[in-house]
Amino acid sequence: MIAKRLRKSLDSAVCIRDIFEEGKKMAAVYGAENIFNFTIGNPSIEPPAIVNETLKELLDSEPALQLHGYPANVGFPEVRRHLAEHLNQKFGCAYTEEGIIMTSGAASAIAILSNTLLDQDDEVVTFSPYFWEYKNYVETFYGKLVPAACDPRTLQPDRSNLEAALSPRTRFVLINTPNNPTGAVYTEDSIRMVAEVLEAKQAEYGHPIYLVSDEPYRRLAYDMEVPYLTHYYANTIVVYSYSKALSIPGERIGYIAMEPTVADFDDLLAGCTASLRFLGYVNAPTLQQKLLLRCADVAVDTAIYKKTRDVLYEGLRKIGYTCNHPDGAFYLFVKALEEDDVAFCEKAKEERILLAPGAAFSGPGWVRISYCVSAETAERSLPGFARLYEKYRNRT
Amino acid sequence: MIAKRLRKSLDSAVCIRDIFEEGKKMAAVYGAENIFNFTIGNPSIEPPAIVNETLKELLDSEPALQLHGYPANVGFPEVRRHLAEHLNQKFGCAYTEEGIIMTSGAASAIAILSNTLLDQDDEVVTFSPYFWEYKNYVETFYGKLVPAACDPRTLQPDRSNLEAALSPRTRFVLINTPNNPTGAVYTEDSIRMVAEVLEAKQAEYGHPIYLVSDEPYRRLAYDMEVPYLTHYYANTIVVYSYSKALSIPGERIGYIAMEPTVADFDDLLAGCTASLRFLGYVNAPTLQQKLLLRCADVAVDTAIYKKTRDVLYEGLRKIGYTCNHPDGAFYLFVKALEEDDVAFCEKAKEERILLAPGAAFSGPGWVRISYCVSAETAERSLPGFARLYEKYRNRT
Repeated sequence: MIAKRLRKSLDSAVCIRDIFEEGKKMAAVYGAENIFNFTIGNPSIEPPAIVNETLKELLDSEPALQLHGYPANVGFPEVRRHLAEHLNQKFGCAYTEEGIIMTSGAASAIAILSNTLLDQDDEVVTFSPYFWEYKNYVETFYGKLVPAACDPRTLQPDRSNLEAALSPRTRFVLINTPNNPTGAVYTEDSIRMVAEVLEAKQAEYGHPIYLVSDEPYRRLAYDMEVPYLTHYYANTIVVYSYSKALSIPGERIGYIAMEPTVADFDDLLAGCTASLRFLGYVNAPTLQQKLLLRCADVAVDTAIYKKTRDVLYEGLRKIGYTCNHPDGAFYLFVKALEEDDVAFCEKAKEERILLAPGAAFSGPGWVRISYCVSAETAERSLPGFARLYEKYRNRT
Repeated sequence: MIAKRLRKSLDSAVCIRDIFEEGKKMAAVYGAENIFNFTIGNPSIEPPAIVNETLKELLDSEPALQLHGYPANVGFPEVRRHLAEHLNQKFGCAYTEEGIIMTSGAASAIAILSNTLLDQDDEVVTFSPYFWEYKNYVETFYGKLVPAACDPRTLQPDRSNLEAALSPRTRFVLINTPNNPTGAVYTEDSIRMVAEVLEAKQAEYGHPIYLVSDEPYRRLAYDMEVPYLTHYYANTIVVYSYSKALSIPGERIGYIAMEPTVADFDDLLAGCTASLRFLGYVNAPTLQQKLLLRCADVAVDTAIYKKTRDVLYEGLRKIGYTCNHPDGAFYLFVKALEEDDVAFCEKAKEERILLAPGAAFSGPGWVRISYCVSAETAERSLPGFARLYEKYRNRT
């Protein structure tokens, strides 16, 4: 009796959460220390102490009825103002209070923008490989997700694939850098190329194409600056989440940021406000909103993730695996040792290594390693990876 | 550039939030004590002390990474188990941990169920007058909301209107008792009638029709017990929010509850889990989930609301207004003194009284008073109501 369209997407999905749950069961049998569960991007660094301190202070100092009461749908004015000022100072932008809309994380922001911008059969372009949930955010609102494959050698956006993916029905382009699943940070050259193509297509079609920048991993970049997209393309809408920066993914807090120069700013604001209501959000949780008055610019110590990355990247390369050097997020995209990446993931389980198949991210033939584990755990996983490699070598 | 279907619903909406905001501006000009803002259902009783105490205890005692980390999409197992046990004890039900799905309040639960159950043009029946947002929750997912008017004398569901509203495309019936906007508690007789009609139609159509019971006001019933609907109709899905019971509407916490005997239980569970993801919720906020381990059965002191209700109900009746005796929620549904309830609300503003027009709730010719104000404020509003009544008497 559930909706046919929902059943269809359930049946076709490779569910990483299922593999993750399987890993937990294996941990119960073999001991957690003997299972290498690289499936889910679940932050492993403690939230900074200021998070709990601030929450307790709020509970002690704010009148409870206001703290826990209804704010405007778009959020508390003082929080929105604070975030606008923070972003302006940090990135040299021109945000105003009005252009900051508090959301329950970045996922909710993308769903809200999909509902705001898409009529039936309207299109959203994204660069593949991409986070599997993108398709669901778009199809839930009867839109279509159109992938534009990255250059497989560099995992950077590709001009001709992007041009081919765009159409007069494209309402927005969804970009994610640092990227899940590849760990790539899109270079300034890539961003300039994307902006150039979109400017030309906007002019050709005679209507705006928004660039929606999904940035939950912005603070997790190790070797380079992540370009701030509003500087390259005026019709950029930034979507942010504190899940990874503060290690609080369960708390669901983030925002949508639009500079007042974004096309149809007032309509977008009205549409997002309505979507917050129509999707049942009403508002982002109030306690988590107020947390940002002190934690807007706080981040976990990413040196820990970086150390793990180095262990895995260097260890896997030494064994013989092919992988790009990941500059951000906590993902490593590795070439599977056979064409069928799902079969390869099954084979890896023999070594008690759990991986996410690239097929789930429209990146078949590859696997994603979520390296939000300790460097020590990563180190201990390497002999298993070596044995796996040997098994395939002995096959041919 | 926003979606045409969204623009359509924005343009047609009578926005109570706008009147509420206007009231805040009037308060700034005339002084808050001289404005009687009865527009929004914003709890006015302090949250019970145990709310903040529990939150602080959680922050002090739980490992931060787990407390703020990703739970399963449907919520923490221990919270779901606790709520199942609480409901079983309180209402004699047979809930299991699996049948409790943690949501960001009741609004989110209805959106999730709409996405789970509706294909394009599928129908949802609700009893009118109804909470204006219902139409939006359904239309966002390309469904249709079909109203079944209550008996205007009693504000109870009407058998022939319900029968006429149902069709083979009806996926669920949305029921809200105690009711927003009328304050009516649907009687046991009404519930038996609804169950009887639905059983017959299920048999006729050969597929389940769910009864979705939206219960944010269950704990706000003053003179009678609110029947628990699972006892009357097996295919009942209960939707609950702690917004009003704990006076924490900004925190967005509630649940969906389904007994294992509900038709297609496993499919519903899979569908709701997927919808939590596809709508961008991922999970209900974790801190607020854990709060319920101690506050599942706590409620504000409703005697305060009851006192205000009595002042207004008796005061308005004495002046000459027509209104039903409201047994629950914090709403009073009053007959407007002219046919055009929007014009009547405008006229009331001359007395600095802000009301919500019934047209917004598919109850034209009436107005809704949200009486979540102090009894003293209610008392002071009565002379204005009396002058308003006199103005209309002098007209004819």
